[in-house]
Order: sequence, then structure tokens, then C-alpha cells
Amino acid sequence: MDARRLKRLLASVQRGEVSLEAALGQLKVLPFEDIGAAKVDHHRALRKGFAEVVLCQGKTPEQVGLVFKALARGSQTVLGTRATREAYEQVISQGVKADYRELARAIVANPPKTRPRLGPVLVITAGTGDQGVAEEAVLTAELMGAKVERLYDVGVAGIHRLLAHRDLVEKAKVLIVVAGMEGALPSVVGGLVGKPIIGLPTSVGYGASLGGIAPLLTMLNSCAPNVSVVNIDNGFGAGFVAGLIARK
Amino acid sequence: MDARRLKRLLASVQRGEVSLEAALGQLKVLPFEDIGAAKVDHHRALRKGFAEVVLCQGKTPEQVGLVFKALARGSQTVLGTRATREAYEQVISQGVKADYRELARAIVANPPKTRPRLGPVLVITAGTGDQGVAEEAVLTAELMGAKVERLYDVGVAGIHRLLAHRDLVEKAKVLIVVAGMEGALPSVVGGLVGKPIIGLPTSVGYGASLGGIAPLLTMLNSCAPNVSVVNIDNGFGAGFVAGLIARK
Amino acid sequence: MDARRLKRLLASVQRGEVSLEAALGQLKVLPFEDIGAAKVDHHRALRKGFAEVVLCQGKTPEQVGLVFKALARGSQTVLGTRATREAYEQVISQGVKADYRELARAIVANPPKTRPRLGPVLVITAGTGDQGVAEEAVLTAELMGAKVERLYDVGVAGIHRLLAHRDLVEKAKVLIVVAGMEGALPSVVGGLVGKPIIGLPTSVGYGASLGGIAPLLTMLNSCAPNVSVVNIDNGFGAGFVAGLIARK
Amino acid sequence: MDARRLKRLLASVQRGEVSLEAALGQLKVLPFEDIGAAKVDHHRALRKGFAEVVLCQGKTPEQVGLVFKALARGSQTVLGTRATREAYEQVISQGVKADYRELARAIVANPPKTRPRLGPVLVITAGTGDQGVAEEAVLTAELMGAKVERLYDVGVAGIHRLLAHRDLVEKAKVLIVVAGMEGALPSVVGGLVGKPIIGLPTSVGYGASLGGIAPLLTMLNSCAPNVSVVNIDNGFGAGFVAGLIARK
Amino acid sequence: MDARRLKRLLASVQRGEVSLEAALGQLKVLPFEDIGAAKVDHHRALRKGFAEVVLCQGKTPEQVGLVFKALARGSQTVLGTRATREAYEQVISQGVKADYRELARAIVANPPKTRPRLGPVLVITAGTGDQGVAEEAVLTAELMGAKVERLYDVGVAGIHRLLAHRDLVEKAKVLIVVAGMEGALPSVVGGLVGKPIIGLPTSVGYGASLGGIAPLLTMLNSCAPNVSVVNIDNGFGAGFVAGLIARK
Amino acid sequence: MDARRLKRLLASVQRGEVSLEAALGQLKVLPFEDIGAAKVDHHRALRKGFAEVVLCQGKTPEQVGLVFKALARGSQTVLGTRATREAYEQVISQGVKADYRELARAIVANPPKTRPRLGPVLVITAGTGDQGVAEEAVLTAELMGAKVERLYDVGVAGIHRLLAHRDLVEKAKVLIVVAGMEGALPSVVGGLVGKPIIGLPTSVGYGASLGGIAPLLTMLNSCAPNVSVVNIDNGFGAGFVAGLIARK
Amino acid sequence: MDARRLKRLLASVQRGEVSLEAALGQLKVLPFEDIGAAKVDHHRALRKGFAEVVLCQGKTPEQVGLVFKALARGSQTVLGTRATREAYEQVISQGVKADYRELARAIVANPPKTRPRLGPVLVITAGTGDQGVAEEAVLTAELMGAKVERLYDVGVAGIHRLLAHRDLVEKAKVLIVVAGMEGALPSVVGGLVGKPIIGLPTSVGYGASLGGIAPLLTMLNSCAPNVSVVNIDNGFGAGFVAGLIARK
Amino acid sequence: MDARRLKRLLASVQRGEVSLEAALGQLKVLPFEDIGAAKVDHHRALRKGFAEVVLCQGKTPEQVGLVFKALARGSQTVLGTRATREAYEQVISQGVKADYRELARAIVANPPKTRPRLGPVLVITAGTGDQGVAEEAVLTAELMGAKVERLYDVGVAGIHRLLAHRDLVEKAKVLIVVAGMEGALPSVVGGLVGKPIIGLPTSVGYGASLGGIAPLLTMLNSCAPNVSVVNIDNGFGAGFVAGLIARK
Repeated sequence: MDARRLKRLLASVQRGEVSLEAALGQLKVLPFEDIGAAKVDHHRALRKGFAEVVLCQGKTPEQVGLVFKALARGSQTVLGTRATREAYEQVISQGVKADYRELARAIVANPPKTRPRLGPVLVITAGTGDQGVAEEAVLTAELMGAKVERLYDVGVAGIHRLLAHRDLVEKAKVLIVVAGMEGALPSVVGGLVGKPIIGLPTSVGYGASLGGIAPLLTMLNSCAPNVSVVNIDNGFGAGFVAGLIARK
Repeated sequence: MDARRLKRLLASVQRGEVSLEAALGQLKVLPFEDIGAAKVDHHRALRKGFAEVVLCQGKTPEQVGLVFKALARGSQTVLGTRATREAYEQVISQGVKADYRELARAIVANPPKTRPRLGPVLVITAGTGDQGVAEEAVLTAELMGAKVERLYDVGVAGIHRLLAHRDLVEKAKVLIVVAGMEGALPSVVGGLVGKPIIGLPTSVGYGASLGGIAPLLTMLNSCAPNVSVVNIDNGFGAGFVAGLIARK
Repeated sequence: MDARRLKRLLASVQRGEVSLEAALGQLKVLPFEDIGAAKVDHHRALRKGFAEVVLCQGKTPEQVGLVFKALARGSQTVLGTRATREAYEQVISQGVKADYRELARAIVANPPKTRPRLGPVLVITAGTGDQGVAEEAVLTAELMGAKVERLYDVGVAGIHRLLAHRDLVEKAKVLIVVAGMEGALPSVVGGLVGKPIIGLPTSVGYGASLGGIAPLLTMLNSCAPNVSVVNIDNGFGAGFVAGLIARK
Repeated sequence: MDARRLKRLLASVQRGEVSLEAALGQLKVLPFEDIGAAKVDHHRALRKGFAEVVLCQGKTPEQVGLVFKALARGSQTVLGTRATREAYEQVISQGVKADYRELARAIVANPPKTRPRLGPVLVITAGTGDQGVAEEAVLTAELMGAKVERLYDVGVAGIHRLLAHRDLVEKAKVLIVVAGMEGALPSVVGGLVGKPIIGLPTSVGYGASLGGIAPLLTMLNSCAPNVSVVNIDNGFGAGFVAGLIARK
Repeated sequence: MDARRLKRLLASVQRGEVSLEAALGQLKVLPFEDIGAAKVDHHRALRKGFAEVVLCQGKTPEQVGLVFKALARGSQTVLGTRATREAYEQVISQGVKADYRELARAIVANPPKTRPRLGPVLVITAGTGDQGVAEEAVLTAELMGAKVERLYDVGVAGIHRLLAHRDLVEKAKVLIVVAGMEGALPSVVGGLVGKPIIGLPTSVGYGASLGGIAPLLTMLNSCAPNVSVVNIDNGFGAGFVAGLIARK
Repeated sequence: MDARRLKRLLASVQRGEVSLEAALGQLKVLPFEDIGAAKVDHHRALRKGFAEVVLCQGKTPEQVGLVFKALARGSQTVLGTRATREAYEQVISQGVKADYRELARAIVANPPKTRPRLGPVLVITAGTGDQGVAEEAVLTAELMGAKVERLYDVGVAGIHRLLAHRDLVEKAKVLIVVAGMEGALPSVVGGLVGKPIIGLPTSVGYGASLGGIAPLLTMLNSCAPNVSVVNIDNGFGAGFVAGLIARK
Repeated sequence: MDARRLKRLLASVQRGEVSLEAALGQLKVLPFEDIGAAKVDHHRALRKGFAEVVLCQGKTPEQVGLVFKALARGSQTVLGTRATREAYEQVISQGVKADYRELARAIVANPPKTRPRLGPVLVITAGTGDQGVAEEAVLTAELMGAKVERLYDVGVAGIHRLLAHRDLVEKAKVLIVVAGMEGALPSVVGGLVGKPIIGLPTSVGYGASLGGIAPLLTMLNSCAPNVSVVNIDNGFGAGFVAGLIARK
Repeated sequence: MDARRLKRLLASVQRGEVSLEAALGQLKVLPFEDIGAAKVDHHRALRKGFAEVVLCQGKTPEQVGLVFKALARGSQTVLGTRATREAYEQVISQGVKADYRELARAIVANPPKTRPRLGPVLVITAGTGDQGVAEEAVLTAELMGAKVERLYDVGVAGIHRLLAHRDLVEKAKVLIVVAGMEGALPSVVGGLVGKPIIGLPTSVGYGASLGGIAPLLTMLNSCAPNVSVVNIDNGFGAGFVAGLIARK
């Protein structure tokens, strides 16, 4: 489209319909818009098969409803994260067909119809409290086309539960390891496999967990060199990075 | 080997040479050792083509020398990180053939002979002070078989320098973005490409940079969802994760 | 007034009505009151064309109503910041004519009638969540006589959106750059123009954003030397400083 | 130059010497380089009359010497900050004519010949320990063309010393207020004048000053709305911002 | 059970019903499950006389009800910590016989029938606000079979109240010392007796107590070498460790 | 009483009614109780003219009511701090005659009848938000027998308001200086007078005030050597220390 | 002197030698200088019997020597804190008669000749490492005219050592309690006596003592209401405040 | 001794040699001394078989030498922690027979002659850098009479190494688990055994390990309820607590 616009301009110059000076003037302002457009295109290309993403936290249910109405045209997948049920109801009331994933606190409109087949991505959690954040990661990775498997509630204080599922662990191409409190699980998993691991700290805990700072520090200091880390409770980010790696 | 040992035991049971009870007793203690052995093997397999790694910081030059002597037998690649020149000289004096990479503060013995061809990995730095940490990442990724390109000194306050090399940025399969001070570069790069980005904060800066905490927080809060983060100054970790992703 | 009082005292001395000792005694206590008065005057002079400012946070709606009633006499402009709608309703019920700016959470009584023409000041935001704080800055700068332009939602992860509006950026005399999460935008803008930039961090974000500490640190460590910073969510302060600079 | 290059390309298209497709191909890669080039130009324009800046901290004396040799050609002013005397001696030994400002820890080559006449900028310090950082700010503002006055050692615990120099305070167009320990001085000065004030916290102090975090927080929380803040010990940044404001 | 399964497999090999290769294949995956099972057994053995533990915080009352229904079969003791009364009512409505300990915020089903006789454990608190956390510790230690005595409200600012009960202090085998605010009590008690002391910091306090960080730091820095520490408000952990030590 | 008990025991020994061994046995356990009793007496002596103090925060209104009923017997003054109106109503409903001081959030039963005449103590505040904490300090100092004067709303950004009341400042024997946000006021006051100053930081502020940590750090780093500091919002402590000093 | 100058001016007005307007003009600028002068006088009065104080840290030995030479004229006492022996030698070499107090790291010139008789002030330390800071406090209080007694090495883990010296504790008028590590001693002492206590935290300790932050927090959170606190290692401040209180 | 003194006093009363009043007077001051003495006795009893402990850090080699000379009389064991070789040499030069344990940085004079037989205590380390701190713990526990076993270098990223030594783990009565960096090992070990575990964080690591704060937080947040924690690098404390538990 932008390429077409550029081509049209050049053709006009070629045909003598537009003067050199006028073309120059247009080109001086155009490139940035072109970059913009190109970036958007590229951006979209890069996210092919993926959704527009709406961070619902900090928006009123009404705003979420309107944003979904605007974005969910055609078959464009739209993912709303950190969404309340109230926001979901506003989306529905705007005539948008969408599902609400309770645990993941997510709204999904127009999910892709092709079955996910990249990866697989394995999402491991330490405790039951980490499940919501984990499900946000699962959903995001699935929307990016990855097949996702779950291995939940295998915290380090019961390491045998993890060891009992080594097959799952070993066949994954990339792993997301979710943990609050002491956040030690990514290190243990990182020692078991030679795959990239996304450490996803959660705010589960109390006192000296400092709202997730403790597991975040733990993961950053991991002695397993295959661990990189995302923000506290950032299930979307972890799922996105895992989806990108699985895609390769 | 362990499989062989297991097989031998089973064969003895089959032949009636070992009683059920005795075999049971041996198996009760064996598995862990087996796992250990298996893990080591697997571990090694997983790191095939990669080096044994020695963190030299916190060891005396003499200790580094002895560790290298022990590990650098045959053609095993050995990488020593955070190494002083004194440590390197001890390695040499132990009769080990090794190079010292000044900038990366690394010792390498028996580097692999095959040319790196995975990736490419692109390592971008914000400022000149970030170069040492970046070179540690470059070296690590190369030892893992990745072809690495450099794009140095393209900080966010001169964003045009980054934009002028978009071809490099776009052809990379995975990127390591190194920055101290405000640590904003990974977000900017993350907005330009749809590839996994490893944010590598450095302790370059003063005052409110808090020894690297400031850029670390910046990267963790990145609004670009394709950024995951490693510890401050952890060039080895960034290079290792990038190498793993490139390998796929 | 104070000058008059001083003059009267001196005249009494001149006329011999007041002894040297008595005058000396009075002068020993007088000066501070004079300074006080002078300061107040000066203070007012300095803020000429600007509003009395009421921080409504921490006051009950009733208190806000009474304060506005006391201050909004004559044509004196009064600005109430961090104000709830309830506080506004109390102001109205006190018979004060005032507007409520929903987004900026501000009450304004007796806005100046002259059109703002200083500046222009450009207010840039990284994300939609930063808009409320930005609007507080816009309103403050406008009340100080500055013409304000907005460039919203141009975060660093989509740098092309910023580059597409370089004309706006370049014609500004001073810029306020508002960002939460990683807070990297002021550095990028700071690299594009040679004008003073007020970095305004917001508490938008979660986890490792630490309630705005992360973007605050980012801005303080900015590698762009034209960035100075105000407190988290301090839209009023940013607007005030920008208004002062524009005024010159 | 870039405009010329663009024009040449368009002319070639007009003349039919370059096909539409080829021109399109060139334009697709050209703009970014153009932006880059334009940015550099603009950048330089924006800093006209100012120096190239070299952060010497973290560079060896030899590196500083070579960088100065490369930059100090013709009459280009070069400012080296956080420089040791050893670095200065290397600069000299490279044949560069330069001065060393002991207190400011700065090297200056080719200082501008015109007398500074913008401003004036007033630099106020709380204690004698803040002087070095203050002098870095003074030097930077002077190199930007500002006339700078000093009012040193007027900490808040002796407020009368400040009040005794109100004339200096009131005639300044912009003020830099430097303080370590409790960092309260910018608030006091901010209450005296209606001019922009740059708060410059220093690492002077011990214990709970936390290396300058205490005065930094004090300044960020200033109840005087005309105070904005730069990083701890960042004399260069404070001088630069003050110079920009004075320039208007 | 697992041992039986292993034995069956070995017997099949012995009888020639299972080939060496097949047995090897099974054993390769089996051991971990065995470990798992063994661990569970061992785990249970280790906790003999103790309860299943449910952290109720972060679970809905309904979830707590269902978890208790599942766990409280037979005579298995179940302890629910950080439980609201609402959660307790759901437990009851599921037909589970259980008590609610208001102060300890705990639900207990099937408490052991044998009288606690290990220890004794002495639980000391500094202030009245620490009582809830202390009671959680008391209950936990009692469920583990320890006899527990209480010495409440003997803060360091009234050291005589502590000294007046030295008999209680001296006959304890292990002590839990609970304190918020400045958290100094464990050090004082630690100087009085030669027994292991568990420091249990609480979030009681305000301002610079930082939600319990202050007493936590105090206890970690204790000059009494017999003090070890658990997380803020972690009554369960303190009671568990004390119970383990008493058990010896 | 305890002295009497001791004496009785000794008399029994003297009369031969109690054997040496038996007396020894009693004395071995007695002393601590004696110390306890003596301490309590002394304690009370030391606080003569002062109130029993109840920290109401963290207690239910019913508990506060009962505690007051127990303590407010005879003419004993009782002070309840951080008390809600609900707690006050419970105190009343228990038949205790008491007043509620709204601003100070305090309940007072049986205030002393003698007029305060020690001191005077001067309580200075920086802003209107600091008034509640200041009033807690005022009330406490008054209950200890000190005459208290107020100088409110004289923050450092309007230093002339403070200077205009130097007479008040100079006649005080001890000063409490209350400030939130940047907390600079104690330093300024400390430079004006040579009396002990209690710095009382408050949690008034937002963002980088970190709930009062910023003014706390400011006061601890004060360059005025006559400033000592109490906890954030600890009006009671400041009033108590000031009362002790005034008492001398 | 200033009073004389004022009187002269008034006399000139009285004699008609100076016009009303001229006198008014002079008075407009005079007062601040007067205040300044008055403040200095008052300041000096307030410190009568006390020393000029020089913070030697951050000054070169040469600078310290010169400052002492300038200040130690006549019989003016001069106290140099945080002084090295090198600085002391420079003071001597400038011809100033002075002593060096090794432990207190202090230089004293012209100590007062009258015997200290205010107070007494009692300085208590928790451990041997706190002695240097304590001695700085002792020296300061003595220079202010207070009789100082020492009670060293009576940490809370050996509370009996403190109790054995209750006579010393009870006869003090004001106490300085010095402690590093957990910093609990001021609370314990605060519970024993009804006198003002200055808590003086030190940086003695390691790990979680965070350079003195841990004992600082402990003291700020003290449940003993008679404790106020100064900065970490601030022996001078503690001695100064104690001296002021003793002086009353 | 004290009991004897008490008895003598009582006998004098009985014999009429001491009046009631005089005895009362003596008893009023005696008890504290008695407590003191009793405490010391008890203290010593409690530590029977254990050493006097000298923290050498912060003392000069000469001071360490003198302290050892004073304490190491007779057969009293003396342990000097955090001791340099220089300090050791001073001890020797004072004529004290002592050993220097290089790794543990400890000096031991008069070690007990009986073979340790309590426990066993198992000391586990995560990495080679943790060895020094671990050896301090080993030595302390041994001096208290415990048999100590070592299991070094079994970090969580190679969990199989730990699992391979389950026999050692299971036969221990109490375990010390030493780890820096992410500090996850105590949680993993805590899940394997039902014994008390002392978590001992070390300052091994860099960047976000924050000098040991990261592993400290990890251990405090451990999901294994049998873990309690001591200060960073506090090998002595960990060994002491373990020794006390083993002793039971």
C-alpha cells in the first residue's frame, strides 16, 4: 500500500505530472509515515497468526468494550489481558463474539482456527497460586501458534514430582517456569534440560517476598545459564517470548 | 555405561545369579546414581560443541590454572569467564594452550574448529562502556556455534544510528541488547523487530543507576513484549541463551 | 504597606516623636514581617497570571469547598489538583463558578481570559495510562500562559509513531515527556531535539515498576543530557517548570 | 546533501535513467540513512557553540588521549568530564592543547572565544564538599554560552547566608542548586524565586545519605514546584539543562 | 507398593516373561516414579502425627471447602492456615468436622488424639499485636506433638516482665520469639538461654517498620548466636521448625 | 510491697521461723519478681503525672473499650492513640468519661487537672497535611506537663513565614518539627536556634516520598547537629521525648 | 555592632542628615545582613563554651591544616571530626597546638579549661566495635560542658551486664546508646529509665546489617517512647544533642 | 559462689550480726549482680565443651593477639572468626598455641580433645565459592561436639548430584545448607528430608545478588517449612544453631 503510494509518486514524476521540487517536498515528510506504515506491516507480518493485544487493566469496562469493537473486525484475533468479567460483558454487549478465560483473566475474540503445532512449549508452575499467571502465558503462546503443555504444582520442595515427568520436560522446545515465594524452580528445571527457559516470577507470597521481588531476584541470579526472566506476573510477556522462540 | 550396568544387573537376575531381593536392594540405590550419570551424559550431549565453563572470579590465579589443567584434556573446549590476566598466565604455565580475550576478560582453551554458522545473533550496545560485557556474550554465543554480528554504541539518545542499520537488525534470528545507565535500548530494538531479544543490563553508570539496578528494572518493565532479561553484567548468560535459541 | 509602615516610623524618628532606642526596638522585630510581606508580594508578582494552587488530596470535599470559596474571590484563578468529583461538587455548592477537568482530576475557577501564547510546550506520552497525569501538566502550563500541544501514545516500542511527528517535536520550546513502565521515552526524545525536556514518570505499570520507581530511575539515568526530572505522577510540577521556561 | 541525493534520484527517474522499481528499491533503504545524516546535522546545529563531550570515567588515560586527538581538530570545543590528571596528561602528550580544571575534574580543548553572555545562571551550593560537582556544572553552562555566578556554602542550617545574597538570587534566569546530605536547599531557594531551578544532588554525606539517594529523594519531593532534578553528582547534566534554558 | 511393582518386574525378568530390553526400558522411566512414591511415603512418615497443610490465603472459601473435603478423609489431620471464617463455614458445609481457631486464623480437622508431650516449646511475644501470628505457631507445634507454653507481651522495653519468668524460659527445649516493630526480643532471650531460638518477625508496626522488614533485619543481625529466623508473619514455619527440633 | 515481702522473709529468718535453705530457695526466684515490681514502681514514678498509653490501632473498638475500662480507674490519666471514633464510642459505652480529639485521633480519660507549665515546647509543621500527627505530639507533651505552642504551615518553600515568628521559635526550650514530602524544615529551624529539635517525619506525599521514607532520610542527614529523629507519623514518640526534655 | 550601625542610621535620620527615602532604601537591604550578623552572634552565643566544628572527611590533610590555622586563633576551641592522623600532623605543622584523639578520630585545639559539670551524660555501647563512634560522642558532649560517663560493651545478648550497672543508668540526665548489628540496646535501656535517650546506630556488622540501616531501623521502631535517633555513625550529632539537653 | 554469698548473708541475719535493714539494703543491690553471676555461670554451663568466641574482623592483629592471650588460659577453647593470617601470627607471637584454618578464616586455641559424636550435622554447599563460609560452620559445629559431614558443590542446577547422596542427607539430624547467587538449595533439600535445616546465604554472586540479599530472601520465602535462616555469610551462627540442635 505504502509501496504502492511511493510507486505512484515516482510514476507521476516519471510522467512529468509532479515536479522534482514537489516530489522532494512530499518525500521529505513521507518517509517517516512510510516507515510507520512499513513498521506496522512488518509488525503485523511478524505477528502473523497472532492477535492485537489490549491491556485491560487501567481501562474502564466501557473502554475495553469500545476498543474490542474497534479492533475485532473481520477475522482479526484480539486478546485482552488482565480483564475483569465486567469488561468481558461490555465486550459482549458491543456485539463482539468473544470468550472469557476466567483463570487467565483474558478475553479472546476471533481465535485462530488452525491448530497450534509449533513447539511444544511447556509451562511449569511451582504452586497452585501461580496458575492464573501461567494460564495467561499458555493462552498467549497458543495464540501465537504454539502447542502448549502444562506441568503444574511441581515446586522445588517436592522435586520428585518434577522428576517424575522428565519426558514432558525433555520434549519441550522452550519452557516457561512460573514461581512465586522463593522462585527457585527455574534453576532446577534449567539444570535438567538444555533448552531456553523463561523465568516468570509471580507476586504469590507474603512478607519478605516483597510482592514478587524475591522470586524475581532468585531467577535473575540463577546458576543455570539457560534462564532469562520477565517482569513479575507478566504471563503475556513470557508466553510471547516463548511463542517467538517456538516459531523458529 | 549406566545402561550397561543396569543391563548387566538384569541379566544376572535373568540368569538367577542375583536374587530378587538383592537386585531390589541394588536398584533402590542405583537409580539416583544412574540419573546422575544419565544427567551428566545428557548434560554433555546438550552442550555438545560447547565448552566447560569456569567462573574465574573468586578463585585465585593458581586455582584457575589447576582447573584448566584438569578440564582442558583432549579437545574439550574450556571457557573461563571474569578472568584476570594473572589467571591466564597461570593457565599457560600449567602447559595448557589457551587464548586470553582482553575485552571479554575470558580465557579460551581448545576453541571449536568448525566455523560458527547458526543464527546469526546480533549483539547491540548502547555505549562504549558496555563493550566488555558484550564481548563476553559474543564469545559465548560463538563457542555455542552461532555466527555473531556486532552493532555497538547505538544508544537511544541517538536513535538514528540504530535506524541506519536496520538491515543488520532484521536479519538477526535473536538479539542481545546491552545497556547500562537508563537501559532503554532493548525496548526500542524490541519495537523494531519481531525476534526474541535478550536484555543485558550493565553496571555502567553512577548515582541513581544503583550499580545496574536501574537498567535492570527498565528492561524488566519493557513495553516491548519480546524482551526477556538476564542478570547485571551477565554476558555469559545472555550469550548462552542466545546460542540456545539460535541453535534451534 | 510595609514600606509605608517603615516610612511612618522613620518620620516619627525624624520628627523626634519616637526615641532612637524605641525605634531601634521596633526595627529589631519589624524586618522579618517586612520580609514576609515583601516575599508574599514578590511571590504573587512572580506568579502573576497564574493561579492559587490547592492540593485537594488529603482534604475532605467540604474542606476543598471552603478553601475554594476563600481563594476564588475577584478574578483570582484557582487550580485544585488531585480533586475528586465530590470535591468539585462541594466547590459548586459554595457558590464558586468552576469547571471540573475529569482526566486531569482538576478543578479550575476563574481561568485567565487571555489566550495562552507562550511556548509552545509539547506534552508527549508513552501510553494511554499516562494521559491523566499528562493532562494535569497540560492544564498547569496553560494556566501559566503557555500554548500546549499534545502528542500522545508514542511509546519507545513503536518509535516510528514519534518520528512521524518530528515537526511538532522540533517546534516546541520545552517538552514534557510522560512515561510509566520502563520510562524510556524522554531519552529518545532527548536525542531528537536540543530543547529542555521535563521527564515525568508515572506509576503506570506493575511488578518491577515499583509504583513508578523504575521509570523515575530510568529518567534520572538518561544518557540525553537535556532531561531533568520531577516526582512520580507530578503533572503539576512538570507543567509549572515547563510554564516557567516557556515564559522566558 | 541528502536532499541533493534525493533530488538526483528523482531527476534520474524523471529522465528515465532509473526505472520505477530501482528507484523504489533505493528509496526503501535510503530514508533511514537520510534521517541519520539529517539527525547528525541537526544534532550538531542544535549544539552549535557547544562542545563535543567525552565521559572519561571508565576509559583508560590512553583512550582519553586518543579520543581527544580525534575530536579536537580545527576549533571544535571538546569537554572531557570526570577526568583524572593522568588522562589530561595523555591528552597533552597527543599534542592537543587543553586545560585541566582540577576542581571540576574536567579537560577542555578549544574553549569558545566569545564571552558568555546568556543567562545569568546562578550555581548555589550547600556545603564545601559539593564544590567539585558544582564546578562541573559551572564549566558546562559557560561552554554553552551562559554567564555563571557562584553562591557557595549557603546550606539551609544557616539560611541567613542565603538571604543576605537575595540580589544574586533574584537576577538569575535559571538556578542550579547543589546539595548532598539532606539536600534541602533547592526547596528553600525555590520558595524565594519564581525561576526554574535544577536540583543537583551529590553523594556528599554518610550513613543514611545512601550515596546521594537521600538528597535525590528530598529534591524530587520538593514542595517548591519550580524544582526539577538530575542524577546524583551529574554536574554536566545540570549545567547542560541550565545552559539550554538560559539560551532561550 | 512401588517396591512391589519393582519386585514384580524383576520376577518377570527372572521368569523370562519380560526381556532384558523391555525391562531396561521400563526401568528407565520407572525410577523417578519410584522416587516420587518413595518420597511421598517418606514424606508422610516424616510427618507422622502431623497434618496435611492447606494455605487458605489466595483460595476462595469454596476452594478451601473442597480441598478439606478431599483431604480430611479417615483420621488424617488437616490444618488450614490464613483462613477466614467464610472459608471455615464452607468447610463445615462440606460435611467436614473441623474447628476454627479465631486468633490463629486456622481451621483444624481431625486433630490428633494423643496429648502433646514433646518439648516443651515456649512461644514468647513482644506485644499484643503479635498474638495472632504466635497462635499460628502454637497450633502448628502442638499438631506436631509438642507441648507448648506461652509467655506473651514481654517486650524489651519492659525487660523485667521477661526476667520474672525465667523458669519458663529455662525449661523450654526450643523457643519461638515473636516480635514486630523493632524486633529486639529474640536477641535478649537468646542471651538468657542456651537453646535454639526461632525468631519470628511480624508486620506489626508502621512507618519505618516497612511491613516487617525492620524486625526481620534485626533478628538476622542478632548478636545472640542461637537465633535463626523465618519469614515475616510465618507462624506456621516457626511452629514447624520448633516442632521438628522438639521431636528429636 | 515487695520490699515489705523481702523484709518479712528476712524477719522470719531472723526469728528462726524459716531455715537458711528455705530462704535461699525463695530468694533465688524472688529477686526477679522484685526487680519486676521495682521496675513497675519506678516506671510509674518516672511517668508520674503522665498517662497510661494505649495504642488503639490493631485493636477492635470493643477491645479498646475494655482496656480503657480497666485502666481508667481512680484518677489515672489514660491516652489512647491512633483511635477511631468507633473506638471512642465503645470507651464511652463502658462508662468511662473521656474526650475524643478528632485531629489527633486520640482518646483521653482523666486528663491531669494542673495546668501545664513546663517548657514551652514549640510544635512547627510544614504543611496542612501534617496537622494530625502534630496534634498527637501536642497532646502527648501537654499530658506530660508541658506548655505547648503551635506554629503551623510554615514550610521551607515559604521560609519568610517561619522567619516572621522568630520570637516563638527562640523562646521554646525544645521544638518538634513536623514535615512530610521533602522533610527539610527541621534543618532550617535547626539553623535558627540552639535548642534540641525532634524531627518528626510524616507519610504526607506521594511517589518518591515512599510513604515517609524520604523525609525520614532528610531529617537523619540533617546538617543541623541539634536534630534527632523519631519514626514516621510517630507523634506520640515526639511528644514524649519533648516532654521529657522540657521536664528537666 | 549591627545594632550600632542601625542606631547610627536612625541618629542620622533624627539629625536630618539622612532623608527618609535614603534611610528607607538602606533599611530595605540592611535587615538581611543584620539578620545574618545577628544570627552569627546568636549562633555563637548559643554555642558559648563550645567549639567551631570542622568535618575533616572529604578534605585533604593540607586543607584541614589551613582551616585549623584560620579558626584556632585566640582561645577558640576547634573540633575536627573524622580526622586522620595525617590531617592532625598538618594541623601541628601549621603551628596550631592541638591533640589527636585516636579512637574518636578527632582533633581538638584549645579545649575549654573549665571542668565539665553539666549532666551527667551516659554513653552506653553494645559492642567493642562501637567504641570509636561512642568516643566521638563523648568528646563532643564534654566540649559542650557535660560530664560524661561510659558504660561499654553491654549488648542485649548479655543483658545482665547492663542490669549490674543500674546506678550509672539511673543517675544520668540523658543517655546516648550506641549499637550496630541489630541495634536493640536503646529499646532495652529505654525501658529501664525515664530519661531522654539518643539512639546512635553504627555501621558495625555485615550482610543484612546493610551498612547500619538495620540498627537504624530498629531504633526508629523502638517500642520505648523515649528514644530519638541520629544518623549512622554520627557520634558528633548524638553528643551535640545530648550536650544541649544536659545544658538545660 | 553467689549462692554461697547469699547464704552467708542470710546466716548473718540469722545470727543477728546483720540487721534487717542492712540485709534489705544489700539484697536490693545484690540480686542484679547475682543474676549477672548466675547468668555467666549458666552461660558457661550452657556452652560447656564450647569455646570462647572472638570476632576478629574490626580488630587489629595486635588486639586479636592480646585477646587470645587473655582468654586461652588453662584448657579453655578459643575460637577466632573472620581472622586474617596476620592476626594468627600475632596470636602465635603471644605464646598461644593455636591453629589457623585457612578456608574457614578461623583461629582455634585449645580445641577439645574428645571426639565429636553428636549429630551428625550435614553441611551442604551449592558452589565452590561458598566453601569458606561453610567451613566456618563446620568448625563451629565440631567445637560444639557435633560430628560434621560435608556434601559440597551440589547446586540446584545439577540436582542429580544431590540426589546421588541421599543416604548422607537422610542420616543427618540437622542440616546446614549454604548457597549464594539464587540460594535455592535449602528449599530443595528441605523437600527431601524432615529434619531442621539452617539456610545460610552467602555473598557469592554479582549484580542482582545484591551482596547476598537475593539468596537471603530466597531462603526466607522457602516453601519448605523446615528451613530457618541466619545472616549472610554467618557461618558461625549456622554452626552454633546446628550444634545446639544436635546436642539435644
